Amino acid sequence: MFSQTVEYALRAAVALASDPTAAQRVVDLAPATQVPPDYLAKVMNQLVRTQLVRAQRGRNGGYTLTRPPENISLLEVVNAVHPLRRITHCPLNLRAHAGRLCGLHRKLDKALQHMEEALAGSTLAEMAAGVDGVKPLCDHTRQTELIHVA
Amino acid sequence: MFSQTVEYALRAAVALASDPTAAQRVVDLAPATQVPPDYLAKVMNQLVRTQLVRAQRGRNGGYTLTRPPENISLLEVVNAVHPLRRITHCPLNLRAHAGRLCGLHRKLDKALQHMEEALAGSTLAEMAAGVDGVKPLCDHTRQTELIHVA
Repeated sequence: MFSQTVEYALRAAVALASDPTAAQRVVDLAPATQVPPDYLAKVMNQLVRTQLVRAQRGRNGGYTLTRPPENISLLEVVNAVHPLRRITHCPLNLRAHAGRLCGLHRKLDKALQHMEEALAGSTLAEMAAGVDGVKPLCDHTRQTELIHVA
Repeated sequence: MFSQTVEYALRAAVALASDPTAAQRVVDLAPATQVPPDYLAKVMNQLVRTQLVRAQRGRNGGYTLTRPPENISLLEVVNAVHPLRRITHCPLNLRAHAGRLCGLHRKLDKALQHMEEALAGSTLAEMAAGVDGVKPLCDHTRQTELIHVA
C-alpha cells in the first residue's frame, strides 16, 4: 500500500529530522536509511522539488529540512512523492454519482481519510525522537546492527 | 493509494454481486464497470486464481462469485489482486527493531490497520445494494449516463 518510494522518502526525512541543523549528503543518508544511493538521490530531488528539503551545494553542502521537524507531518512527506489522492468524484464519471458517491467509492474514500488523518497526526520530530526507547533507522557506525538475511 | 487494478477488481466484484446467480462474461461486465475488456480479462483471471470468482466455460458460461456476496468483504477483493501488506517486521532488518518496530513503522502499520479494518467491515452485498438510493456502477443500457469529459 505504501510504495517503495514513500518508504524511502520517509526514512530520509526522519534521518534529516534526527539532526535538523546538519546538512547531510546522499553518502551520509544512504547507510542510515539503507536506501540504494542512486534511488535515494532521486527521492531527495523529489523532496527538494516539493520544498520540504533544501539542497545546499559545495564542500559543506547537503540536504536539510526547510522547516522545523515539529512542523512537518508524515502526510506531507508522503504527498511529496506519491500524493494520497482522496476520491472526490465518481471514477466512472457517472452523472448520477456527481456530488454523491456510490457506497463503494464512499467506503474507499473513508478508508483513505482514516489513512490521511493517521499520517497528518504525526510529525517528523516525533518519529526521530523514537518511541519506548526504540530509535528509528540505523546507527551505521555499528557493524552488528543488521539482522543477517540468508 | 488504491491501484487501478484494485479499483477495477472491486468494480467487477460489485457487478457480480449485483446479480449473483447470473454468469457474466467480460463483454457484459466491461460496459457496467467501464473497464477496458483486455484489462478486465486479466483482473478476472486474478479473481479466479484466488478463488473469489468461478469461471464457467461454454455458451451460457461466464463469471460468478464462489460465495454469497454477503460473505465477501472488500478486503478480500483487494487482497486478491494487490495484497494489503501490514508491517510485521522492521523493513531495514534492524536487530534492535526485531519484535518492536520503531515509531515510524509502528505509525505506518497503524494506518494500514485502520485501512484493513475499514475494508474488512464492508461486504460486496452492501456495496451492490447501494446507499441513499445511489447504486454503484453503470446501467449501461442508458446512453446519457456518463458525464461528458472534454
